Amino acid sequence: MDFQQILTEIHEEVQSFAGQGKVADYIPELGMVDPRKFGIYLTFLDGKTFSVGESQEKFSIQSIVKVLAVGLAISIIGKKIWKRVGVEPSGHPFNSLALLEYEAGIPRNPLINSGALVVADILISHLKNPQKDFLHFVRRMAKTENIQYNKQVAASEKDWGHRNAAITNLLKSFGNIHNDIEDVLDFYFHICSIEMTCRELSQAFLPFADHGRALSITGEFLTSSQIKRLNALMQTCGFYDEAGEFTFKVGLPGKSGVGGGIVAVYPQEFSVAVWSPRLNKKGNSLMGMKALELLTTKTGMSIF
Amino acid sequence: MDFQQILTEIHEEVQSFAGQGKVADYIPELGMVDPRKFGIYLTFLDGKTFSVGESQEKFSIQSIVKVLAVGLAISIIGKKIWKRVGVEPSGHPFNSLALLEYEAGIPRNPLINSGALVVADILISHLKNPQKDFLHFVRRMAKTENIQYNKQVAASEKDWGHRNAAITNLLKSFGNIHNDIEDVLDFYFHICSIEMTCRELSQAFLPFADHGRALSITGEFLTSSQIKRLNALMQTCGFYDEAGEFTFKVGLPGKSGVGGGIVAVYPQEFSVAVWSPRLNKKGNSLMGMKALELLTTKTGMSIF
Amino acid sequence: MDFQQILTEIHEEVQSFAGQGKVADYIPELGMVDPRKFGIYLTFLDGKTFSVGESQEKFSIQSIVKVLAVGLAISIIGKKIWKRVGVEPSGHPFNSLALLEYEAGIPRNPLINSGALVVADILISHLKNPQKDFLHFVRRMAKTENIQYNKQVAASEKDWGHRNAAITNLLKSFGNIHNDIEDVLDFYFHICSIEMTCRELSQAFLPFADHGRALSITGEFLTSSQIKRLNALMQTCGFYDEAGEFTFKVGLPGKSGVGGGIVAVYPQEFSVAVWSPRLNKKGNSLMGMKALELLTTKTGMSIF
Amino acid sequence: MDFQQILTEIHEEVQSFAGQGKVADYIPELGMVDPRKFGIYLTFLDGKTFSVGESQEKFSIQSIVKVLAVGLAISIIGKKIWKRVGVEPSGHPFNSLALLEYEAGIPRNPLINSGALVVADILISHLKNPQKDFLHFVRRMAKTENIQYNKQVAASEKDWGHRNAAITNLLKSFGNIHNDIEDVLDFYFHICSIEMTCRELSQAFLPFADHGRALSITGEFLTSSQIKRLNALMQTCGFYDEAGEFTFKVGLPGKSGVGGGIVAVYPQEFSVAVWSPRLNKKGNSLMGMKALELLTTKTGMSIF
Repeated sequence: MDFQQILTEIHEEVQSFAGQGKVADYIPELGMVDPRKFGIYLTFLDGKTFSVGESQEKFSIQSIVKVLAVGLAISIIGKKIWKRVGVEPSGHPFNSLALLEYEAGIPRNPLINSGALVVADILISHLKNPQKDFLHFVRRMAKTENIQYNKQVAASEKDWGHRNAAITNLLKSFGNIHNDIEDVLDFYFHICSIEMTCRELSQAFLPFADHGRALSITGEFLTSSQIKRLNALMQTCGFYDEAGEFTFKVGLPGKSGVGGGIVAVYPQEFSVAVWSPRLNKKGNSLMGMKALELLTTKTGMSIF
Repeated sequence: MDFQQILTEIHEEVQSFAGQGKVADYIPELGMVDPRKFGIYLTFLDGKTFSVGESQEKFSIQSIVKVLAVGLAISIIGKKIWKRVGVEPSGHPFNSLALLEYEAGIPRNPLINSGALVVADILISHLKNPQKDFLHFVRRMAKTENIQYNKQVAASEKDWGHRNAAITNLLKSFGNIHNDIEDVLDFYFHICSIEMTCRELSQAFLPFADHGRALSITGEFLTSSQIKRLNALMQTCGFYDEAGEFTFKVGLPGKSGVGGGIVAVYPQEFSVAVWSPRLNKKGNSLMGMKALELLTTKTGMSIF
Repeated sequence: MDFQQILTEIHEEVQSFAGQGKVADYIPELGMVDPRKFGIYLTFLDGKTFSVGESQEKFSIQSIVKVLAVGLAISIIGKKIWKRVGVEPSGHPFNSLALLEYEAGIPRNPLINSGALVVADILISHLKNPQKDFLHFVRRMAKTENIQYNKQVAASEKDWGHRNAAITNLLKSFGNIHNDIEDVLDFYFHICSIEMTCRELSQAFLPFADHGRALSITGEFLTSSQIKRLNALMQTCGFYDEAGEFTFKVGLPGKSGVGGGIVAVYPQEFSVAVWSPRLNKKGNSLMGMKALELLTTKTGMSIF
Repeated sequence: MDFQQILTEIHEEVQSFAGQGKVADYIPELGMVDPRKFGIYLTFLDGKTFSVGESQEKFSIQSIVKVLAVGLAISIIGKKIWKRVGVEPSGHPFNSLALLEYEAGIPRNPLINSGALVVADILISHLKNPQKDFLHFVRRMAKTENIQYNKQVAASEKDWGHRNAAITNLLKSFGNIHNDIEDVLDFYFHICSIEMTCRELSQAFLPFADHGRALSITGEFLTSSQIKRLNALMQTCGFYDEAGEFTFKVGLPGKSGVGGGIVAVYPQEFSVAVWSPRLNKKGNSLMGMKALELLTTKTGMSIF
């Protein structure tokens, strides 16, 4: 298959959706991005890579980091994590409190905000220097030192992050946050502020396609079984209340972020990252979703 | 791999869960089954088959039929079906009305009761003799004439089916049932009453592993793309509010029924049916779930 | 106080709201009423009466009948009724199923649809000829034989009553309907179809102002304590999710109907009925609410 | 009527419930109270007073203060308050976030936590020295200088008040908190920590029985109409999801607190305060509810 040709076609075809959707602007820093940006980077396990567009420009990875965070947490505490967070799709928007209230403080899964906040709490409890260690971990995953927190984004998130503060307080009231609330929020907003390129994201998620090579910060490997389960989690929970739609149309495990990025993996074959800042009503990149749908349609490469 | 040996091991290992769980007894007919029954039947695309236990005894397939029903409906009306039912996991029990009320009569997906009732309504609108035609379709899928409705089960379901009647009336109040409510319920209870063996179920679901060979009743094929999407749907919605758990632990698209049956498919390779009547708290076969978890663990055959 | 003068003023002042709101048209029979109709009838315990507008024209009393029905049920089975229905405001629209589902089939109170359907079921169980006996009871309360069911309205409600059928089936699934669903719905739709004038309604509710004179069909009196509790129930639950608003602005126990009628009582003093068909967004008579607000403001006669 | 005799009877009769219920212990300070305490203080508009038990011992008034707070807020900003908080019963527990989320940050009423937090925010915006001024207001209402905040209780509430912090953050995310979250919580926990005796509470709520004499801190009177509406609000919303039960059984506007206190008023006649620390499952004083039910039953003095 001529993957370069396919990416070029996708790039052209998604242009018909340019102008649809809306860049996230709940904090000013995110709203300043050029909405026309678009990039794809495809990395195969055998080392081949293909790309189109602005695939080497940095953008805010936002919720995509939740997958890396839960992966790191599992590498440290293993199965015990499932006592504090579930593995079910929530069927609710990413930042809902209602469900959390009814289910007594156990988030449905680690890829919605409440779950990721519990994961952040776990990492704070186990990392010596949480911010420094986490950044080190992401750099190792992406195989580059050139990855930073955007301190301005992190600070701005905190200024406007009342809903996340509400969630964290509610979790704390149920005993499912062990550290100081301010510390958890600070760490969470920092890891969400990480900036990466499509190329770097694609590289960082390659271990999810290649079972068993995800070097954890502790120097141990995530097992093949753990990787599979993280992929399963992305499949059912990676797109908030649009997870079914993504699974249905794209058929690959993946995760989106409000910065317009989406990563997806095709086990045993490749990982791919797309970036286009305009979001659909569910908060997922509109052209990014279309691009990945075209990718699996054109290549037939879906897990189903 | 020695699949026969693996099935034998699974058979032994799941015995430690015998006694846990509870046979469905909301209608007397289902409650009369011997709870100790257990069977697995594995059918590969290349024709090889493996089995253990009571894999050739009939049992009530119940909700498993929802996959066949929605497949048939798609083969008839195509994409139009998604105007009347969604593709998202519900995050709620199988028979919940609350979500349906909030979302104005559009069921979250066709594999929960409300969605399957809409599918039943669609089939009634398009089949000349709905009961006869549907049975004919299932027989063709399973490649045997020896499949029947259990009229007693269907009648008993109706006597106790007030919640399904509530759902259908609520759907009707939103305009999402076009036929007579009694007719829809009658057809729905009939198709759920079908009795099949693990062997027959495994055969009937083989086309979901082998993209593009699912003969529809109209004589046309479901496309490879349609099959993939049905698999995706099973993955995210096949186990009610335990879909994430199944995806996480088993990693195969599948569907369970309250009669204790579960089918699952490994695309390009095999389909498998398990039967064990005792259900866990979420209404899925307790030993069946364990058996399939062991199968993917022992074989490494998960889609992730 | 010159009550006639006050009613005349109210009649004039509410004209500024004419044209706002919308006549109920979920069944054609209700939609045919002249939206400009307006009437008030005020009956004092000492026998004095005052009225303005079309206070002696018949209209569909609809949900107002729920108070009479629960009163009759209490006169028959007493406190046992509270095992099957609660006394709390629902905080939800009148026809919601969600709450009923979460609370396992015990309606929040007898003045929302689900609760009134349970009351209808109780009456069917205890009345020899439910329809005939209930009509007889209402006639005695209103002191006139000239009260009828509107059979056409009852039939039309049934044709369009899928949501009430949904509620009744859901109640039945929880075991809180003892009779045949069709019979319950038929009886319920009949009692809601009763047509009365403001004058007749005012008379029928006078016993609620005059503790202890509500002749029950069994020939016994409702006790003063029972009357007070029914008034309390009207106060907290008489206007669906606008009960607080009515209590807040009008300050009298009352009950509205989708036909545009409202009754209210001022204990020890009077009962009043208003009619104006246009409804606000919560389903209560828009001008009727305003008229009663003006009445308590002008007279200072609120229970608070 | 011999009110002293009636109070003595009530005192005796409620003893049969001693031992039922549970003292609030979510903060250690509240848990230390002697559960056997019981007092009633009844103040008539004509100056007569009656009492039994420990009616002159201080206890934590907790949520009872919400009525005084909203009264003060209305005296300052008038009707504008209803743009930020509603007047409907919530049908949910006092500290629920779910409803608040669905209704976009407008609390159902000012007597549940979320509503009272908005009221606290309003008072902070309008009082020069919020803590000092509010205490001054309560002292004037109760006609004694001998009223204090319990700083230890306020501090302890803050340490354990993650759910209230969650609510305040959620309100802030919807723009319905204008001041600093810490300031709002601090003020809220302070006013809830006020300690009063039954006698003082009874005095402080006498203006609610005597329309038009509630001196506000600004030196103006609450109007008779405002008082009536506050009474209406207590009637429908004063007891969380047990408001209907209280209205039904007691038939007086009232408000309870988690410290075991309840106040109620009989318009034009009296105000009454009861104290008994053991709470029922809904968080209202178990013996306090019984005592007030007996009071209206024995005296016939209910508003209905």
